[in-house]
Amino acid sequence: MADKIYRINMNDLSFTIEDVPSEWMGLGGRGLTSTIVAKEVDPQCHPLGPNNKLVFAPGLLSGTSAANSGRNSCGAKSPLTGGIKESNVGGTTAGIMAKLGIKALIIEGLPQDDSTFYHLHVSFEKVEIQQVPELVGKNNFEVLDHMLAKYNKKVAVMSIGRPAEQKMLISNISVKDPKGKLRSHGRGGLGAVMGSKKIKCITVDAEKFNEASANIVDPEKFKEANKVFTKALQENPISGEGLPAFGTNVLVNILNEAGALPTRNFRSGQYDFAENICGETMAENIKARGGSTTHGCHAGCVIQCSQTYNDKDGNYLTSGFEYEMIWAFGANFGIRDLDLIAKIDALMDDLGVDAIETGVTMGLAADAGILAYGDGAKAYEILANDVSNGTPLGRIIGSGCANLGKLYGLVRVPVVKGQSIPAYEPRAVKGQGVAYATSPMGADHTAGYAVATNILNSGGFVDPLKKEGQVALARNLQIATAAVDSTGMCIFVAFPALDDPKCLPALIDMINARFGISLSGDDVLNLGANILKTERAFNIKAGLTSASDRLPEFMNYEPLPPHNLVWDFTNEEIDEFWNF
Amino acid sequence: MADKIYRINMNDLSFTIEDVPSEWMGLGGRGLTSTIVAKEVDPQCHPLGPNNKLVFAPGLLSGTSAANSGRNSCGAKSPLTGGIKESNVGGTTAGIMAKLGIKALIIEGLPQDDSTFYHLHVSFEKVEIQQVPELVGKNNFEVLDHMLAKYNKKVAVMSIGRPAEQKMLISNISVKDPKGKLRSHGRGGLGAVMGSKKIKCITVDAEKFNEASANIVDPEKFKEANKVFTKALQENPISGEGLPAFGTNVLVNILNEAGALPTRNFRSGQYDFAENICGETMAENIKARGGSTTHGCHAGCVIQCSQTYNDKDGNYLTSGFEYEMIWAFGANFGIRDLDLIAKIDALMDDLGVDAIETGVTMGLAADAGILAYGDGAKAYEILANDVSNGTPLGRIIGSGCANLGKLYGLVRVPVVKGQSIPAYEPRAVKGQGVAYATSPMGADHTAGYAVATNILNSGGFVDPLKKEGQVALARNLQIATAAVDSTGMCIFVAFPALDDPKCLPALIDMINARFGISLSGDDVLNLGANILKTERAFNIKAGLTSASDRLPEFMNYEPLPPHNLVWDFTNEEIDEFWNF
Repeated sequence: MADKIYRINMNDLSFTIEDVPSEWMGLGGRGLTSTIVAKEVDPQCHPLGPNNKLVFAPGLLSGTSAANSGRNSCGAKSPLTGGIKESNVGGTTAGIMAKLGIKALIIEGLPQDDSTFYHLHVSFEKVEIQQVPELVGKNNFEVLDHMLAKYNKKVAVMSIGRPAEQKMLISNISVKDPKGKLRSHGRGGLGAVMGSKKIKCITVDAEKFNEASANIVDPEKFKEANKVFTKALQENPISGEGLPAFGTNVLVNILNEAGALPTRNFRSGQYDFAENICGETMAENIKARGGSTTHGCHAGCVIQCSQTYNDKDGNYLTSGFEYEMIWAFGANFGIRDLDLIAKIDALMDDLGVDAIETGVTMGLAADAGILAYGDGAKAYEILANDVSNGTPLGRIIGSGCANLGKLYGLVRVPVVKGQSIPAYEPRAVKGQGVAYATSPMGADHTAGYAVATNILNSGGFVDPLKKEGQVALARNLQIATAAVDSTGMCIFVAFPALDDPKCLPALIDMINARFGISLSGDDVLNLGANILKTERAFNIKAGLTSASDRLPEFMNYEPLPPHNLVWDFTNEEIDEFWNF
Repeated sequence: MADKIYRINMNDLSFTIEDVPSEWMGLGGRGLTSTIVAKEVDPQCHPLGPNNKLVFAPGLLSGTSAANSGRNSCGAKSPLTGGIKESNVGGTTAGIMAKLGIKALIIEGLPQDDSTFYHLHVSFEKVEIQQVPELVGKNNFEVLDHMLAKYNKKVAVMSIGRPAEQKMLISNISVKDPKGKLRSHGRGGLGAVMGSKKIKCITVDAEKFNEASANIVDPEKFKEANKVFTKALQENPISGEGLPAFGTNVLVNILNEAGALPTRNFRSGQYDFAENICGETMAENIKARGGSTTHGCHAGCVIQCSQTYNDKDGNYLTSGFEYEMIWAFGANFGIRDLDLIAKIDALMDDLGVDAIETGVTMGLAADAGILAYGDGAKAYEILANDVSNGTPLGRIIGSGCANLGKLYGLVRVPVVKGQSIPAYEPRAVKGQGVAYATSPMGADHTAGYAVATNILNSGGFVDPLKKEGQVALARNLQIATAAVDSTGMCIFVAFPALDDPKCLPALIDMINARFGISLSGDDVLNLGANILKTERAFNIKAGLTSASDRLPEFMNYEPLPPHNLVWDFTNEEIDEFWNF
């Protein structure tokens, strides 16, 4: 191992390549980005000012042949939540960065000449920084094409679209996937942080790698563990069957059945037109129209939950067409036409805006009278024209759900820590609600996927409609997830990990074999607990408190059909979460 | 004394008249509104939801002949700051409420039928609540005329304009003054709270009073003390000369001279066109055009800092034309024409929007590229059309400076706790900066007017450009102000109180004579300290922390001309404020 920290200073457009401090050696992915942000960023700084930093780090197993290890983490102080943010993504960046021996890429400062945008080209032991006025005002696919042409396709590409140039809080950092489509560092407005630093695009060169970084200390043990791990992924009914067959969108029918599919801005747990948008319908369309139900968002994925979705005439519409997007614009905003949602999805990939934040904002915009529920054509137009061009209406939608709620004096605003609540109704999946409330990331289903045990019977069963056991469940899942997010693994390894006793040991064996160490299961859980506590400590210093660990008040007094339950946890019960 | 609590429940449109709990007996004004809000409002509730309350309370001396005792307090959880809010105002309400024996008016709940707005008519032992669809969409002067005609002028009137109907955060509650013009419960978006409760207007009937409430226990002592107090007000060079001659706008030249007049969105402490907008120019115009330089905002005022301002042809333009308004649209937004600022002032009175919040937002809107600096015609149009009608742009301006900053990704956003910084540059009046940072109200010059001692040499002198002594100064002033805000006294009594040893004892003598008690000076300061601590405790429970007690970060690294100073207090130095 000869991994390095690559540090870029936008103030003077310089870079340094630094040794990895010993205390960061055992960290990767989220563990590393959160540790660096907590150590180097003033928690009270303005997230779009000169003192925030943007940090990228591949997972501990990224760059190896470990199945599903291709996730890259991005961290910063979030301009949406005001707290720490980590967002991980598939695509090709994690593997290439890891093979270059880049333990983390830290970007700091703001350029003195902020009249244009910059392109950073990162290669082995080198960073080139240049102005790219020709790319200003372009969206992601054009930037991607430009860079793939320039580097003969041998680069990973991270870019921002027009909304992030304008520092909108719904904006993502978009990442090239193996097929040249896009994945997203979503949530928390990380695109706006990149935009504030005037960085249009980062390419990571795959021409020459750092050979020392490819070293595996015990290759035989690694190979054997990977085999066990891969088998666990493939034999699990969710990661091995449901997800490859129907994509994440398999969840529409499951959540609708459970009465926990947030509908019409969180007014019901069931959507009358779920059939129109569900995974089964999507899979039928794909088969009939010549798309593909399976696609991996990163090299080495054995789950293949992504897909290629074509229109009625068999023309490509979109890919990476996920449950959260389909739910947000379908059940929650009310579009009944899956093809229209796909068209919006493709536009949003190009713009680089967050599916959850944008969709939930659109649902609230209907409450505000900005457009009618389900008017997908109007939603498309607002995104394509207003958000893209930064009109006043575009600025409002582009600022996300919490800010729209403030501007229109709305009370039913489904956010936690300023971030929109995802596709699982907390009143009807109470474990997920606890995770939303307590995650240092703001409302985030990936921070602790209690749906697994509340709805999918993974890792046992905790009744989703009752309070009992939910705080412990949400805590255990968040700790485990923080650890998994540090390995570079996709979150869906959680399904076999929760049910197959061989899965998690195999994952740990791979880490041990790679680095020649001997972590135990407890060590890994301690790592997860430490990450959570580091993140929470940052947030406390930033000014968040237990009062930030609350679901929106309306859920306390408004019963949700069909179960007609309210959110009935006391503050004390929620605050118990942090007693570990 | 037979004062009562009048409590209105908007849920079922009912009211009760309750005895005053013993622990509230000694409280009035801010002391009472803050105590009630802290006791009865869940600090974590949504400020525009069913669990916030709107509380009005006259001061302890309101309704008596005590000079300058006509201030009424309004309290609630603020939708702008997320913390507690008290805002006091002149006008005719305090006197009438006090004479009716209304210790406090508490309004709670939200109406079930929220399809229209309501009018509350409060009279002796009675409250009438009725729908007023005919007033929906009207602005303040029309509502005022309507009510004065209906009640033959024998009412106090509190109303909201169109922005508050739309729950905009820049909106005030507007209050009739003795001449039928308007004053404002400004700051913190209290108009939006009234709008959320669907209350268009509150009239307080002056036909029949509660005679017991007029009782003064020791009338001779009261009269004597009032004489001393009045003399102190009249003999002080600021309250007796400067303010009556030039109004509050006497401050433009003083602050400009001091290099502390925030200019062009807080980029300089001096405005090249101060001469155009200063109090001296204003007084000349008034004299030449047949207005009036003196006018009291409430009966019994002996300072008369308000005025009537006419246009070039001698036609009425506006009244209550204050320094903060003239600064905000003049130096900070860049309008050079005092008459145009007066025209905007009149419009804003009619709309019922906050001078400081709206003006500072307009300055930031220029940074955002929404309009050009100093384009007063465009600013007028945005207010008259966009804000009034709630267009997307109107919603943005109507949400105030902090939210506009979020929507446009701006870093130089002059707010504390989400509320705009008033007309004294903290980097050049450091004592005022400490008060802005620490006040539970958000940035607020009236919470502790350190300008007095930093610039006006009232109560000694503490160098405005140095840190020494500022925390203690801001603390002492905030404690004293919290007490004064409970008496019903205008804040300008602070000038004689700081310099004339007879003034404060005379004020306390009046309270003692009225109620037959024997408060000492220490008792009064303890009251002030307790109020501050009560407010701070509410804020902490609401989720604010010491991280909320910060000036905007840009002031830490951006030197302000002409003194070229930054804000250089450490967090620890600021946090020392609360050690009392």
